[in-house]
Amino acid sequence: MKTISEIRPGAYFDSVVLMQLQRSLAELHGVDDAGVVMATPANLELLADAELLTKEGKEAQPDDLLIVVRAEKEKDAAAAIEQVDDLLQKRRSRTSHEFRPHSLEAAAKQLPEADWVLISVPGRYAAGVAQEALDLGKHVFLYSDNVSLEDEIELKTVGLERGLLVMGPDCGTAIVNGVGLGFANRLRRGNIGLVGASGTGLQAITTQIHNSGGGVSQAIGTGGRDLKAKVGGMTAMQALDLLSRDDETDVIVLVSKPPDSTVATRLIGQAMACGKPVVVDFIGYPPPAHQIGNLHFATGLSEAGDLAVRLSNRDKGTKSKDGSGRSGYVRGLFSGGTLAYEAMLALQPFLTPLYSNVPISEHQLIDDPLNSEKHSILDLGEDIFTVGRLHPMMDNDLRLRRMRQEAADQETSMILFDVVLGEGSHADPTAELAEEINSIKKDRDDIIWGAIVVGTDEDPQGTQKQIERLSESGVEVYRSTQSAATFIAENFTNDEYFSGKPVEIEGLYKPLAAINVGLESFHDSLKEQGAESVHVEWRPPAGGNEDLMDILAKMRS
Amino acid sequence: MKTISEIRPGAYFDSVVLMQLQRSLAELHGVDDAGVVMATPANLELLADAELLTKEGKEAQPDDLLIVVRAEKEKDAAAAIEQVDDLLQKRRSRTSHEFRPHSLEAAAKQLPEADWVLISVPGRYAAGVAQEALDLGKHVFLYSDNVSLEDEIELKTVGLERGLLVMGPDCGTAIVNGVGLGFANRLRRGNIGLVGASGTGLQAITTQIHNSGGGVSQAIGTGGRDLKAKVGGMTAMQALDLLSRDDETDVIVLVSKPPDSTVATRLIGQAMACGKPVVVDFIGYPPPAHQIGNLHFATGLSEAGDLAVRLSNRDKGTKSKDGSGRSGYVRGLFSGGTLAYEAMLALQPFLTPLYSNVPISEHQLIDDPLNSEKHSILDLGEDIFTVGRLHPMMDNDLRLRRMRQEAADQETSMILFDVVLGEGSHADPTAELAEEINSIKKDRDDIIWGAIVVGTDEDPQGTQKQIERLSESGVEVYRSTQSAATFIAENFTNDEYFSGKPVEIEGLYKPLAAINVGLESFHDSLKEQGAESVHVEWRPPAGGNEDLMDILAKMRS
Repeated sequence: MKTISEIRPGAYFDSVVLMQLQRSLAELHGVDDAGVVMATPANLELLADAELLTKEGKEAQPDDLLIVVRAEKEKDAAAAIEQVDDLLQKRRSRTSHEFRPHSLEAAAKQLPEADWVLISVPGRYAAGVAQEALDLGKHVFLYSDNVSLEDEIELKTVGLERGLLVMGPDCGTAIVNGVGLGFANRLRRGNIGLVGASGTGLQAITTQIHNSGGGVSQAIGTGGRDLKAKVGGMTAMQALDLLSRDDETDVIVLVSKPPDSTVATRLIGQAMACGKPVVVDFIGYPPPAHQIGNLHFATGLSEAGDLAVRLSNRDKGTKSKDGSGRSGYVRGLFSGGTLAYEAMLALQPFLTPLYSNVPISEHQLIDDPLNSEKHSILDLGEDIFTVGRLHPMMDNDLRLRRMRQEAADQETSMILFDVVLGEGSHADPTAELAEEINSIKKDRDDIIWGAIVVGTDEDPQGTQKQIERLSESGVEVYRSTQSAATFIAENFTNDEYFSGKPVEIEGLYKPLAAINVGLESFHDSLKEQGAESVHVEWRPPAGGNEDLMDILAKMRS
Repeated sequence: MKTISEIRPGAYFDSVVLMQLQRSLAELHGVDDAGVVMATPANLELLADAELLTKEGKEAQPDDLLIVVRAEKEKDAAAAIEQVDDLLQKRRSRTSHEFRPHSLEAAAKQLPEADWVLISVPGRYAAGVAQEALDLGKHVFLYSDNVSLEDEIELKTVGLERGLLVMGPDCGTAIVNGVGLGFANRLRRGNIGLVGASGTGLQAITTQIHNSGGGVSQAIGTGGRDLKAKVGGMTAMQALDLLSRDDETDVIVLVSKPPDSTVATRLIGQAMACGKPVVVDFIGYPPPAHQIGNLHFATGLSEAGDLAVRLSNRDKGTKSKDGSGRSGYVRGLFSGGTLAYEAMLALQPFLTPLYSNVPISEHQLIDDPLNSEKHSILDLGEDIFTVGRLHPMMDNDLRLRRMRQEAADQETSMILFDVVLGEGSHADPTAELAEEINSIKKDRDDIIWGAIVVGTDEDPQGTQKQIERLSESGVEVYRSTQSAATFIAENFTNDEYFSGKPVEIEGLYKPLAAINVGLESFHDSLKEQGAESVHVEWRPPAGGNEDLMDILAKMRS
C-alpha cells in the first residue's frame, strides 16, 4: 500500500465539498481509501485512525486543506491526486454563477431585506459569525455544533435584549413562513406553531401533523441545550411568547428532551398563561397528567402530532389567565399515599419549591414532616404518622389537628386534602372535617379549601352527601388529582417569566429572505423553496489562525 | 395539670378499640388530653411527645395496656380513669355475641370454606400470623405495616411455591369476587381486573371505572414494596398470571408507584405476552409510548380508569404472543438524536440490557460508541461521530460502514435505523442504504432490518419511493418510533418469567369466606357485604413478650 498526500495552504472549502471530493477520489481506479479534510487536530486524529495520516500531513496547519490517497500501486495514488483540480472544477461548474459577497456585511447590503442568517461554519468560528449577524439586527439560525455554552449564553442574552431569535447552536431545523431552514420536511401551512429543543423531534412531529391532515404556522428550533439550567430556556421562552401573540397560531407544541426542572416549571407556567392549547412533549420527563387546563401532555412524538391536529380542529376558545398567581403556599394533607404521590407528580411542574414526605426527586424531601415548608404535600398515612394510631382514612383526628396547624401559619394560602370513601373507611368523614373547617374559617376566611373525593354512588357513606357537605363549607371539590392540579396551576402559577424584548411578529410573515454562511446545500435548499438567499463566500478569519483571530477580536472590541 | 395513668398487664385490644376509648376519655368533663395504647417503645415515645408519659407509664411492658389522662383537676382525671370499664363495656354490647375462636387454627375449623385470611395485627406479630395462614393453605390479605422486607420475601416465596397469594404487607385494598377487603369502594361487577402495588391507586382507578360505567372482575393488591428489586414483583406476577387466565377478565390494569427497572421489564414482558389489553400506570415512570401492542400506558389514575373502560367495551380480540422472544440483539443506528432518545424510552421496558450514547439512565451509557454491546441504540449524529464529517442525515457513509460492522457480529439479530427526509437531507438516501443491505444479505440473510421513515408526501426525495425501495430490500418500514418498538417488543420480549405454582382461578368465584385477625371493623365490613367471616379473638403470642415469642417460634420449627 502507498499513501500519498498533498497540502494546499489556506484553501478553504465547506464540508459538503470536501466530502464529495473525498468520495470521488475513493472511487477512482486502484484507490483503496481517501481523506480530504481541513487539517485541524481533530481531523488529523481521524485520518490517523483510518491509517491515512502521512508524515507530511502531520505538519499541516488548521487552515490548510489536506488531501490523502491510499492505493495498492503508487501510480494510482499519484494519478488520483492529479485529478483533484478537475474534480473540484467539475463541481464548480454545476453551481450557478451568481455574485457572491465575501462578508456578512456585504451580503446584508446586497440583500437588505434578509432578516435571517443561517450559520453552518465550523463550531469554533460560529459564535463570531452569529455575533456579527446580531449586530446587523438579524435573527440567527445556528446549525453549527461544538459552540461553547458560554458563547451560547452570551449570544442568547444579546438576542433577548434586542428581540432577535438565536435558534441553536446545533439547531437542525426551523420553518419560518413556510420555508424550511436546515433540515425540514415540506408541509402544509396551518395553525399549529412549534417550539423545539430537538431537531428530529420537530421533524417527526411536523411530519405527523402533515400526514394527519394538519398544518404548521411556524416551527422554531432552539438548539438542544436551550432548556438546560444555565441557558434557562431563553430562546424557548422568546419563541413561546412570539407564538402566543401570533394570530395565525391556534395551537402550540413544545418539544424537548428532559429539561432542567426549574426551566420546565418556568416554561410550563408561561405556556399555561398563554391561554392557547399547548401540547407538551418533554421526552422522558414524567408527564404530570394527560391534561391540565390548556396544557396537554403527550407521550411520544407521533402522539404529540396527532394531539395537536385534534386540538387545531376545535373551535378557538382561548382564554387568557387573569392575573399572575396567588401568593402563599399550598399545603396538601393526604390520607392516600398514592394520591399524595400523584399530586406531587401533577403539581411539580407548577409549584416551586415543593416539598413532601413522598418526594419524586430527592431534593423535594421535606426536612420535618411534622412542619410544612413552602408548598408541601404530605402523605399522613406514612409510618411516622400512624405508629400507634389508626390510619387517617379511618380516623380524622390527625388531619383535624394538622388543618389547625396549617391555618395558624399565615403563609398557608390553600389546604388540599383527600376523602377516600368505601368499605373500611370512616363512616362519615366529612362531618368532622367540615365542622373543623367551619371553625377555622372564623379566624381565617382567606384560605382556599380543596378536597379530592374518591367514591362511588354505592359507597356506604353516600358520596353525594359527602360532597354536598364539603361544598356547603366552601370547599372546592375535585374528583381526580388532575382536576385539583388544574385549579392550583391556574391559580398559583406565576406567568410573569418572560421579560425580553418581544420579537416582532410581522417578521414571520414577510417573504423569507436570508443570508447563508457555511454549507452551500442550505443556500440551494432555500432557493429551491422559492426564498431569497445570498450565499457568503466565507473563509475563516485570519486564515483560521487562532492566535491571529484572538488579536482581531480584541482589536474589534 | 394533673396526669394520671393506669396499667392493665396483658390486656390486648385492637387499635380501633383503643382509639375509640381514647377519644371517649378525652371528651369527658375537665379532661385536657388522653392516651390509650399498648405500651410498645414507639407508643411510649408518642405519649412522651404529647406530654402524656407518666413515671408509671415508663415502666409498662409492650404487652401492657396503658391508659393516661391529663386534666386541670386531679379529681376529673381520676373520674375519667374510673370510667374506662364502663366505656369498654358500652362498646362490647354493640358488637354481636357470636362465638369467637381464639386462634387461627380454631377459626379454620369453624369456617373450613374460608380461603382468605385478613391480617391487621401490629406489624411485629403480622408475619407470624401470615405464616400460620399459609400453613393452613389460605390466601393472605396482609393489611399490617411495619413488617420487615425479609419477612415479606419469605412469605411471598412460600406463597409462590404453594399457589397462594400474599397481598401485602401494607396492602390497603383488594376486591375478591365482588367483596372488598380492607378499604374498598362498592362497585359494579364487570370485566376489568386490576393488580396494584398501591392501595389508594387501586381505589381511585376502580372508582373511576365505576363512575364511567365500567365494572371490576377482581382487584388484587400486592403491597407497596412488591415491585422493589428485592421482592421482584412476586405477587404482581402471580396476580397478572391469574388474571391472564381468568375468562371473566377482558382488560387488565397494572398500577404501581415507580417500580424497579428490572422488575418493570419483567412485568411488562409478562403483560405483553398475556395478549389481553393491559393498561399500565406506573406513576412517575416515564411511559415508553401511549400504546405498544396490547399495552396502553396511562398518565394518571383517572386516565387509567377511563382507558380501561374504553378498552373493556371493545370486542374481545385477544391474541397470545407466539413463542418466547428471538435471541440475539437489536442494534439501532440513528441519524436523528431525538429519534434515538425516543427509541431508548420506548424500548427500555422491553430490552435488557440496553446501552446507548444517549442513555436515559446512567447505567445505560455505552462504554465505547464505536462498538455496540448487547442491545444498543446509537445516535450517529453525536459529536464523536460528526467531527470532520457531514451529518448522517446528509451523508450515509458512516451508517453504511456501521451496518457492515454490526452484520459482522453474529449476535446482531436486528438492525434498526431511521431515514429522515425533507429539505437539507440526502437527496436519495435509500438508494445507498438499500444497496448496502442487499449486499450484506448475501452473507447474512437472518438479520431483521427495520427503518423508521420520517417524511411527507411533498418531500423532495419522494417518501413513497423511499419506502418502496426499502420494502423491496426486505426492510420493515415504520412511520413512528412506537411502531418500531411494538414490533421489537412483540418479537424480542421474553415471556417465560412467571414460574410459581399457578393460583387456582376457581377460588376467585366461590362465595367469599374469610378469617379476620386484627381490626374488628374489617370483619364488620365483610359481614355487611354479605360475606362469611369469622373474627379471631386474637392476643399477641406469649403475651407480647418478644423473648418468649422467639422461644415458641424455635420450638415450632
